Amino acid sequence: MSTLYLLGIGPGSQDHLTAAAKKALAESEFVVGYTRYIKQIENLLNGKEVYATGMRKERERAAHALEQARRGRTGSIVSSGDPCIYGAGGLLLEMATEDDFNLDLKITIIPGITAALSAGSLLGAPLMNDYVSISLSDLLTDRETIINRLHSAGKGDFVLALYNPRSTKRREIFLSMIDIMLQYRKADTPVGVVTSAYREEQEVIITSLARLAEMEEKISMNSIIIIGNSQTYTKGGYMITPRGYF
Amino acid sequence: MSTLYLLGIGPGSQDHLTAAAKKALAESEFVVGYTRYIKQIENLLNGKEVYATGMRKERERAAHALEQARRGRTGSIVSSGDPCIYGAGGLLLEMATEDDFNLDLKITIIPGITAALSAGSLLGAPLMNDYVSISLSDLLTDRETIINRLHSAGKGDFVLALYNPRSTKRREIFLSMIDIMLQYRKADTPVGVVTSAYREEQEVIITSLARLAEMEEKISMNSIIIIGNSQTYTKGGYMITPRGYF
Repeated sequence: MSTLYLLGIGPGSQDHLTAAAKKALAESEFVVGYTRYIKQIENLLNGKEVYATGMRKERERAAHALEQARRGRTGSIVSSGDPCIYGAGGLLLEMATEDDFNLDLKITIIPGITAALSAGSLLGAPLMNDYVSISLSDLLTDRETIINRLHSAGKGDFVLALYNPRSTKRREIFLSMIDIMLQYRKADTPVGVVTSAYREEQEVIITSLARLAEMEEKISMNSIIIIGNSQTYTKGGYMITPRGYF
Repeated sequence: MSTLYLLGIGPGSQDHLTAAAKKALAESEFVVGYTRYIKQIENLLNGKEVYATGMRKERERAAHALEQARRGRTGSIVSSGDPCIYGAGGLLLEMATEDDFNLDLKITIIPGITAALSAGSLLGAPLMNDYVSISLSDLLTDRETIINRLHSAGKGDFVLALYNPRSTKRREIFLSMIDIMLQYRKADTPVGVVTSAYREEQEVIITSLARLAEMEEKISMNSIIIIGNSQTYTKGGYMITPRGYF
């Protein structure tokens, strides 16, 4: 039986690739992914059939990977971070289970370091206690649901990790998010902004909720924002959310 | 300058160790950790000074690691999963920044596959949309805060990943959690229970919110429970939370 790997390549640097991910890539006859992520692992793809396409081609990539795997070939569909956290893995499983044909096929998910974890590791320990992960992309979830979730994150005093916080076309929800969080958190709540984690162009900034709006121009789709809870503090350059210990 | 690594060894199997984690262990003169996690990476510790202690010794381990590092030695303090998600990293940063002495010391955080991600990878794609991570251990967070957070997770229609869901001494909050979630979710909401992910004794069960209480005896501190949101479904043996796509 052929295997299709839903494979997470982690953040920018190959240092954070797992042994399982490397092994799965080595076994793969074909590798499918978004052009940028394929480029990131290019040196591991010698002699493999590569199918790389640009943004907004998720469906085509998943269909191609499924078709190849159904022909009995072993391969991988790659995502940055973890394949099943805002990655390509969910759509692939949805499409694979639409009919029963897929049951001939073994699907193996290889988890990867998702962006909240890579951003956290560059800030200190902001995610040490209960946290929420929300994507601000209102192309994929309706705006009302996102707003409702931001209020829930505020009320529950959760640390908040934001994916896709702002695009050049979309800034309104980013500004609304700040307004909402200011209803629940103090103005000096620590906020970490990590852009392009573990890539050459990496930028790590620790600021406050009150000053986040001023930084708007520095925030892109490659940024992750982590907003502290009521206990989070900064010291020695680290952002730390305390938790009880024995 | 010496380096102290706060190092995540990921779930049970070494397959999910990152290249960065392996490199940091290779560089370490000393390695500090909970006995069970030290055992998991024993084959990588030849010739190193190992300081392993049992449960509830977090403070001693962190103090020992800091003391060694301040003597100019390079080493690692290890956690399963990610060191800064319910791991040893937060306490270490808290202790390191208590005085200024620590500023002689370089602290590098090596992120790891946290338990929500390893459990998710064995269930399908339950975490594909916004999710909340909550620890049910009321030894470290007060019970009222946990209950409040469970309500917020319910209201926000978040997928819910639960760490430390139940211990032999503590079952009340586990049962309360089910009651709370049933106020917001249908009885047939898919629930995944993953115990000892990627270890020999691994167990993966997909059940429903209504039937979760019946499984109580199978749930331990080594389990992670993932409760779907209103959109989560099961098909072909996978637990899938759908998300929009282009």
